Amino acid sequence: MRDVVIIGTGQTKFGEKWEKSLKALMAEAGVKAVKNSKIKGEEIDALYTGCMASGRLVGQEHIGALVADQVGLNPIPSTRVEAACASGGTALRTAYLSIKSGEHDLVVAGGGEKMGDVPTERVNYALGGAGDQETEIFNGATFAALYALMARKHMEKYGTTEKQLAEVSVKNHENGAKNPYAQYQREISVESVMNSPEIASPLKLFDCSPITDGAASVVLTTKEKAEEKGKDYIEIKASAQASDTLNLANRKSITEIKATQQASRKAYEQSGIKPEQVDFAEVHDCFTIAEILAMEDLGFYEKGEAAKAVEQGKTKLEGELPINPSGGLKAKGHPVGATGIAQAIEAYKQLTGKAKERQIENPKTALTHNIGGTGATAVVHMFQKPSKEE
Amino acid sequence: MRDVVIIGTGQTKFGEKWEKSLKALMAEAGVKAVKNSKIKGEEIDALYTGCMASGRLVGQEHIGALVADQVGLNPIPSTRVEAACASGGTALRTAYLSIKSGEHDLVVAGGGEKMGDVPTERVNYALGGAGDQETEIFNGATFAALYALMARKHMEKYGTTEKQLAEVSVKNHENGAKNPYAQYQREISVESVMNSPEIASPLKLFDCSPITDGAASVVLTTKEKAEEKGKDYIEIKASAQASDTLNLANRKSITEIKATQQASRKAYEQSGIKPEQVDFAEVHDCFTIAEILAMEDLGFYEKGEAAKAVEQGKTKLEGELPINPSGGLKAKGHPVGATGIAQAIEAYKQLTGKAKERQIENPKTALTHNIGGTGATAVVHMFQKPSKEE
Repeated sequence: MRDVVIIGTGQTKFGEKWEKSLKALMAEAGVKAVKNSKIKGEEIDALYTGCMASGRLVGQEHIGALVADQVGLNPIPSTRVEAACASGGTALRTAYLSIKSGEHDLVVAGGGEKMGDVPTERVNYALGGAGDQETEIFNGATFAALYALMARKHMEKYGTTEKQLAEVSVKNHENGAKNPYAQYQREISVESVMNSPEIASPLKLFDCSPITDGAASVVLTTKEKAEEKGKDYIEIKASAQASDTLNLANRKSITEIKATQQASRKAYEQSGIKPEQVDFAEVHDCFTIAEILAMEDLGFYEKGEAAKAVEQGKTKLEGELPINPSGGLKAKGHPVGATGIAQAIEAYKQLTGKAKERQIENPKTALTHNIGGTGATAVVHMFQKPSKEE
Repeated sequence: MRDVVIIGTGQTKFGEKWEKSLKALMAEAGVKAVKNSKIKGEEIDALYTGCMASGRLVGQEHIGALVADQVGLNPIPSTRVEAACASGGTALRTAYLSIKSGEHDLVVAGGGEKMGDVPTERVNYALGGAGDQETEIFNGATFAALYALMARKHMEKYGTTEKQLAEVSVKNHENGAKNPYAQYQREISVESVMNSPEIASPLKLFDCSPITDGAASVVLTTKEKAEEKGKDYIEIKASAQASDTLNLANRKSITEIKATQQASRKAYEQSGIKPEQVDFAEVHDCFTIAEILAMEDLGFYEKGEAAKAVEQGKTKLEGELPINPSGGLKAKGHPVGATGIAQAIEAYKQLTGKAKERQIENPKTALTHNIGGTGATAVVHMFQKPSKEE
């Protein structure tokens, strides 16, 4: 079996990019990743791109062809992969499998979304495509409303407080303030979260990730090829994906995301790495409660213990297990198709010691966790610094 | 390297399925394929689903999760792949690579589209997502208009006639009349095509594939596993994909589809099979002119010779090279995400001798050809009857 690695990354600044189209954003990230990897375009065998809702957001499907065309890489195969907000994670996994298959040696996995070109209610409706149209969205549920149900139940069951949720947001803004690619590069206070407008009780505006334009790309190849090139790389030790019911109503429990549990268990098994060996994680904090759920479902903390850990500062940059050093979806921004790839970029930067102001001290092992909808898809990747560098 | 095979197939009847939702159609095809393969649901490692425009057609993205949920296969990984009208072909190729990778042993590749639930102008606009929004669709081009440009140029350059185009449609309806799953199971005459309403000159209504609801699934596994199970199978000898510019305007020539040429050349190389060894082909006849282009670009006929071959009956069921024995997109119907999979189903049926009334005499080698947009994506698969059966 071939070992797959990441040898380079590129991303746009995340935010409101009025001046750039979806394809321009994707091309910018892709070209940066190729330059950063010190490869030539001709070496690329295939492209995989995660994108959730371009049809409804910018009137364009056929995103694989769009990307290959825009970066001048015809006639190589170029394919779009979609799994709602986990589109980026599944694009990464598909690219990874295509290298494992022996069919491709060097592949770009990218993702992007242009969300700001349509009114907010249309963005909400497009994002609703991640949930169940028939039982949830048709009946008026927004994604904030669905996560609010999960939050309320978690509060009831485990005593999680709104202030603890706010602490997630405060910590992620602290990290985002140190990330030049983040949409919000400023710190906020618990008070500002608590006093922000209610979106779907108990979730307030600052409990929610923003509407974001942006794109991200990583270059994958074999360990062998990376060694040849002498380029810094990180190893992909596991790539796992799991599914669950599309709607919340059909789940036995809404205070856990089973797909996260299953994908991470598989990833731990594949990699032989235990949760306690993970040095930091990028998790899917589309809402503050989602980060709490992820911390528990990934096996980092017992059920009901994650919120306390956040409050105690254990997941800060200098804590025992930094979570979302990039600023997470909350502060870095959440251009849905790009998110799973942007998480891998943070893993690359931290593990290769290139995270500057937000650098964690000598991390060796990283986990990324990307969710679609309310957890109907979960994708978990594990990355490691090559041991020769130790 | 592992050899990948198809061991079973399932599809819904194609047509106007007012009584069934997208997920019901997909589940029906998937369950049939599983039964036909004589496997159990628990054996399935992953699902890949081709779907083009569910966001705009039925308000639903996250189609992978939708499918896994609907057929009760959580928590296995389930991923949507999109490449416009080639979504089915790319789903098949992604599934194939996932088995090649060694990660999965038994995978269902499916595809579907529910197109009839919205008014025709909205279907046209959604299908426009396959072309370039900025330069083509925004300016009022429909897909019929784009293919009409290609047809007009082909007529000018090679003397192809409207009557020859009509012959494609007549032949495909002849075959469709023998396919119980086809949307139109009736023969039509050259006169009826010539007298049908003009859509985009020179293309008339009966030059165009219809708006269709439907789904199709195939079960893929390794040759080894298929032998164990003792189930009829066909081998996938090649799976190749290529890309081209998204819009027509940026191409040097619009009387050829370069992506078809490149994907097929790669497929011939991978399989070691020459075009003249192909016993029949399912090609992407979204419009009659598209079948002519495919016949030439796949290397079956010289440029300018394909239309004559059709007129001479060479591509009929009993001709030298039967094209679209299933009835093609024109008569079988074109639920876009399902089409690439339905083509593989015809390959399976013909090569295993199960095509009944439309059975070709003892075919050994089949080619399928699936196009996205006006050829910005092309996917070519080659299939062979296992030689032990000869």
